[in-house]
This record gives sequence, structure tokens and C-alpha cells, in this order.
Amino acid sequence: MNPAQQVMERCDLLASCSDEPGSITRPFASDAMRRAQQYVREWMRQAGMTVSRDNIGNLRGRYEGSGNATLLLGSHIDSVRDAGKYDGPLGVMIAIAAVQRAHDSSKRLPFSLEVLAFADEEGLRYGSTYLGSRAVAGGFELSDLERSDADGVVMADAIRASGGDPSNIAEDRWSGGDVLGYLEVHIEQGPVLEARGLPVGVVSGIAGQSRLEIALTGEAGHAGTVPMDRRRDALTAASELILAVEAAATTQTGLVATVGKLQVEPGVANVIPGRATFTLDVRHADDRTRSAVSEALLTRMRETARRRKLTVEAHSISENAAVRCAPGLASILTQAIKDCGQRPIELTSGAGHDAVVMSSLTDIAMLFVRCKGGISHNPAESVSAADVAVAIEVVNRFIELLAKS
Amino acid sequence: MNPAQQVMERCDLLASCSDEPGSITRPFASDAMRRAQQYVREWMRQAGMTVSRDNIGNLRGRYEGSGNATLLLGSHIDSVRDAGKYDGPLGVMIAIAAVQRAHDSSKRLPFSLEVLAFADEEGLRYGSTYLGSRAVAGGFELSDLERSDADGVVMADAIRASGGDPSNIAEDRWSGGDVLGYLEVHIEQGPVLEARGLPVGVVSGIAGQSRLEIALTGEAGHAGTVPMDRRRDALTAASELILAVEAAATTQTGLVATVGKLQVEPGVANVIPGRATFTLDVRHADDRTRSAVSEALLTRMRETARRRKLTVEAHSISENAAVRCAPGLASILTQAIKDCGQRPIELTSGAGHDAVVMSSLTDIAMLFVRCKGGISHNPAESVSAADVAVAIEVVNRFIELLAKS
Repeated sequence: MNPAQQVMERCDLLASCSDEPGSITRPFASDAMRRAQQYVREWMRQAGMTVSRDNIGNLRGRYEGSGNATLLLGSHIDSVRDAGKYDGPLGVMIAIAAVQRAHDSSKRLPFSLEVLAFADEEGLRYGSTYLGSRAVAGGFELSDLERSDADGVVMADAIRASGGDPSNIAEDRWSGGDVLGYLEVHIEQGPVLEARGLPVGVVSGIAGQSRLEIALTGEAGHAGTVPMDRRRDALTAASELILAVEAAATTQTGLVATVGKLQVEPGVANVIPGRATFTLDVRHADDRTRSAVSEALLTRMRETARRRKLTVEAHSISENAAVRCAPGLASILTQAIKDCGQRPIELTSGAGHDAVVMSSLTDIAMLFVRCKGGISHNPAESVSAADVAVAIEVVNRFIELLAKS
Repeated sequence: MNPAQQVMERCDLLASCSDEPGSITRPFASDAMRRAQQYVREWMRQAGMTVSRDNIGNLRGRYEGSGNATLLLGSHIDSVRDAGKYDGPLGVMIAIAAVQRAHDSSKRLPFSLEVLAFADEEGLRYGSTYLGSRAVAGGFELSDLERSDADGVVMADAIRASGGDPSNIAEDRWSGGDVLGYLEVHIEQGPVLEARGLPVGVVSGIAGQSRLEIALTGEAGHAGTVPMDRRRDALTAASELILAVEAAATTQTGLVATVGKLQVEPGVANVIPGRATFTLDVRHADDRTRSAVSEALLTRMRETARRRKLTVEAHSISENAAVRCAPGLASILTQAIKDCGQRPIELTSGAGHDAVVMSSLTDIAMLFVRCKGGISHNPAESVSAADVAVAIEVVNRFIELLAKS
């Protein structure tokens, strides 16, 4: 079987490891994760790796080289609810395929390869993202161990039940000596590569992200009796702001802004909404642009609230700075793409990735693979075996170039 | 205790009968309703009435007169979620106070009085309004018995659990002989009486009402990776339509239009909304105006959906024509107001009332009582004991004038 075909079949097999029959839902420290790890562990072994599992639950497959340094490769194998097959697993499967190639050719590399299959990136079960890579990069918050899932299971207990020791998570921090960098292959989750007709692209950086929660409070009232000019309708005000968010985002290239969640109270057909709560997610590769847009939107919200005689409260949920991929690694990746006969392209990632967290430990590089319609976090996620074949070749060539440099 | 003070205290007591501690929520056939009915039953008895409970769950207190005819008085004792104290209960309490007056003075009226405390007007639990008055007026839809509440409890079972026989609801239809009319006292729920400095007003008619449910379907996607110009965001489209509804309503006097309920799917901060469902409530005293506005809004919705590449489905939930109060009864009510030393005023009701349904059975009359700030369907609902005293006097005088006529 050719490596790309094998990667595709392995993604199919991982998709069958789900907590929800008929769809793909593979949370942190779940039974679905346990089954997925049995497969991944075996595939790592077949590729000549020594496999270990750390306390948070990441699988680590190590393939020794002649030198002291290590190149890390990886992605995550957990998923969102009702996920696709490729967001996460594809990067791990391609990393294993690259090690398999080195193993099959009996080549001794001047550095070790270590494949990291992170146990949590999406944060589905505990609402806290990047548990796996944070443990490796040393950014794990011990207070997260007290979080409870929807069934009331505390994270520390879930870790214990799946074989880890929550009191030793600090030991998961990378301690394997010099690191050359971290390379992550991931589906693009956007439409750019498809639009340009290219199988893969080099990620130049990962957009920063502001997430806020906004609450507008007006006054509930009877939908039949309060005249329009006496209303303090929280939903019409929210609507004005949602359109302002959309308009602001379309004025700048590379900027995206989204209201994904909106709740109306009391939420009854014949009552004027007295309160509306919504989230705002703003992302851009340039942190100053993102901050300026977020600030302008907050000002606009306060103006609208004042004009409509409402009160507005805004609070920040999270604020993540943009991360640049290492120019040195990116140029090797660009050369690798050229050497494989493809036209290189640079793109910004609008989604966060384990690479963001790993950037605090080492230089990062990311290779995006074209996906159909830019769709992700959805069962319709789709990549072609031909594009996967290109990605595998590019990663192999990247390793060769790095070995020569 | 004077009658107005007693009415105020009884409204306070009913407010303590709630399914949600700390707020007033008294749905149809609920435990809160059962407790409220224990009070109302006792107060009816104290006023000399014979009390019965019909199958749908209305309490009926009958005070016999010398003739064959009956004057019906009443309102509802269910509530919206997080309601005020007076919408509904005030009318029932004033009706009981009027019977109490007749009873205390040992006067034998030439007609019987029957106080109806309707079990459902708001439709909170089953989304279908006027269950109580529709059963009495003969307009109850048997198919409603199959409706389920939010917990999956079927209406027929809820009726059975609260002591009614769902298979005998047809027997709830009025069968007590000649009816002189139905008089309902209700808080205005609007700002007109307060603006004019008047305690009560005569209702000339009740606005017609269109209620629709609109569903917009676009495409969910990753909030970080789908560029703004490739989105098919159902919430931004809904926001545009909500502002169009508001704008349309402000162009015509007496017109009100409200989006009270909006649900977003999947409703997650980092996912572009793929679907938005909302209600539309349009009211006006003139049926042609209301229909024209509703039609124009539907056209606008289809245009917006087309432009934004979404699909829109709209379906009518209810369509109620405007109802005129009986001129004969209204002129007696006007005379009663004058006789009590007050200046009479006529107003249109923007809210629907049990009187709308009762108009299919008999002539209707309605007396509005001033409420603070026009606020209703809200814990801040407020009426003064002084205004309630006027309302009680007007109802007593109305009964006297009717007895003489």
C-alpha cells in the first residue's frame, strides 16, 4: 500500500473510535481516545519508534538518530463534537508516515524524530484547550485539574482513570535535550489552497484571537402594548452590533470577526427582549490590527447602547497574541515544496493549533493541506489522497533538507 | 380591609405561587397553578360563589341571580416566564371583589354573575394560547392535546394529572343559558392612561395579531478560517431582518412588530452560525395594515436570504383578526366611569386577551387599569391601590347599570 493510501485508511480507522456512534466525537481521556491510542501506538511501533505515554495522555513515538538533537512532529488526536476525520489525526498520520520512510530506507538521520500525538487540543471535554501540548511545552495550568466535565467528572480523576498521574504532569515537560523545531501538518480549514489550485501551503503565522462576551440589558415588555418609540429592546440593539461586527471585518483583508453564540432573555415570542448576551471572536495575523478593531467595536457597542438607552457589559474571555512561524524552518519547507515540483504559497492560519503552544518551547513550522470547500469541524471535512501524497513527500524532503543543513 | 387593598394582597399571594423560586412563572397545569387555584377557590367561596373546575382547568365561581341570564366576568391566572403580578390575576381578583360586594350587600341581582379564572391565556407551557377561554367559548382544538411541553409531557397527560379529563373538554363549552356579555378588567400594559393621567379606560377593540416563525439556513463553519466574503452566516442575516422589522414598525402609528425569540445553531463562540430561527409578532387595530406589513416583511426576508445565499422558511403560527368590543356594553362602561367621577377614555388594546376568544360566544367589554410605565410581562409590573379602587367601583357601577337596563 502506498503511504498516502495508508494515511487515508488510518484516518478512517481513527474516525471509528468515537464516543457517539454514527458521528466522530473523541474527547480527552475518553474510551474513544483509549481505542484510538491502541491503533496509534501500534502504527508508531511498526514505523520503528519506541512508544511512551505521558501523564496528560499524549503518545510519544521516538525514532533515534545519530546526533543529540530532536525534530518534533505531531498534531492532536482528540476531536470536537460531530467532527471530521482529518482535523488533528492527519498531521499525526503523516508524521508517522515520514518516520516509516526513514525506517524503511534504513537511513540513520543526524537527529532523532519524535512524533507527538496530543491527547487534547480542542478542549471539548473540559473547555480548556491545548491540554496535551501545554503539558509538553510546560504551560499546563495545575488549576485545570480541578475542572469538571458535563457529567461532573473532575479532570484529575479522568487522567488517573486513563492511566496518567495528575500529580506528575510537570514531568511531561520536554526534557529530551536540544530541539530543532516542531513541524505540524494540518488541514487548512479554509478555502485559500482550493481557490489557488494548490495541494499544500506554508503557514507564515497563526492569527491572534480576541474572544469577548457582551451582555446588553434593556427592558423586557409586552410585544403588543409597548409602542416602538418607548422600547429598550436588547435584541434589536444586538442585531445592530452584529451587523457592525460583520461590516468592520469586511473592511480589512485577513480579518475575521464572528458572533457565534447569542442568547435572548426571556426569549418568548410575545415579550420584547430585555437582555441579549453574545460572544465576539476577532482574529488577525497582526495583533495591533486585531486590538484596534476590537476596541473600535467596543466603542461602537457603548455608543449603540447609549443611543438605545441600554447598558452594555463586555468582558474578555481570552486574548491570544499572533504567533509567527520560524522563518528559517518556513524557508526549508518552501524549498521542500519546490523540490517536490509544487508551487509554494504562504498563508496565515486563522485557527489556533498545537504549534501555537509549542512555539514557547521551540521554533515551529506548519504545512497546510488543501481541504474541500474549506470545511472543518464538520463531518463533511474532506482531503484527497493525492494531496496527502504531496504532503508526505514534502515532509520527507523537509527532513532531508534539514539533515543536510 | 377595603376591597382594593384586599385585591392588592391577593395579587401578592398569587405571585408567591410560582414554579421558579424568586420569580413569577405559573404555567398551565403546573404545581404553581394548583396552589394558586386553592387560593382562588377559597376567595370565590368567601364571596358566596359555588365553585367548580372544568376539564381544561378553569375555575368557575357562580353567584346566582333571580333571572336566567348570566354576566360573565374574568381573566386568566397563568403567567409568562418571569412575569409581573397583575397581568391576568388583577381581572379575576376585581371580578371576585364585585361579587363580594353584591354578596355583602345581600342584593339579589336580576342576573347571575359567573367569575371565570382561566387556566391558560399566555400559552407559556404549550405554545398555544387561550386554552382556557377557548374551551369555554367552544374553540378548543382537540389536536392541541397532543402537544408536548419542553420536558416532553403531552398536554392530555398534564390535564389528566391536574384533575381534568382531556376527552371531555367539549363539555367545558358554555352551557349555562343566556349570556349578557363578558367583562374583563386588565392592566393596560401600555403607557396611554399614565400619559393622560387617568386611572381607567374603556377598550374599544383589540388589535389583530400575526405570529410567524422564520428559519434561516446558511452554513456553519470555522470562525477563524472562513473569510468574510465566503460566509453564509445565518445570524448576520437574521440581524438584518430584525432591524428591518423594527424599521417597518416605526413607519406606522399604532403598529408594533417584535422578534422576541431567537435561537442560533450550533451556538458556539468559534463556529459561524449555520441556522437561526426566530419569531415575528405583528399587531395593528386594522387588519389590512397588519397583513400588508407582514407581507412586506416576508418579501424582505426572501430578498435578504437570496442576497446572502441562505434559505428561508416562514410559517404562520397564528393569525388573529382585530376584534371590536360591543358598543352597547362599552357605553354602559363609559357611563359607569362618569358616574364614578372619572373622565372616560377609549383605547385600543395591543395585547390579545381572553375577551378576544370570548367574543365568539358573547358580547365583550374590557376595562383597562393604568399601570406604571406601561410595563408588563415583567416583574416590574405595577398598579396602584387607588386605581384598583376606581376599577372596582366602575365594575360595581357597571353591574348596577346593567341590572337597571
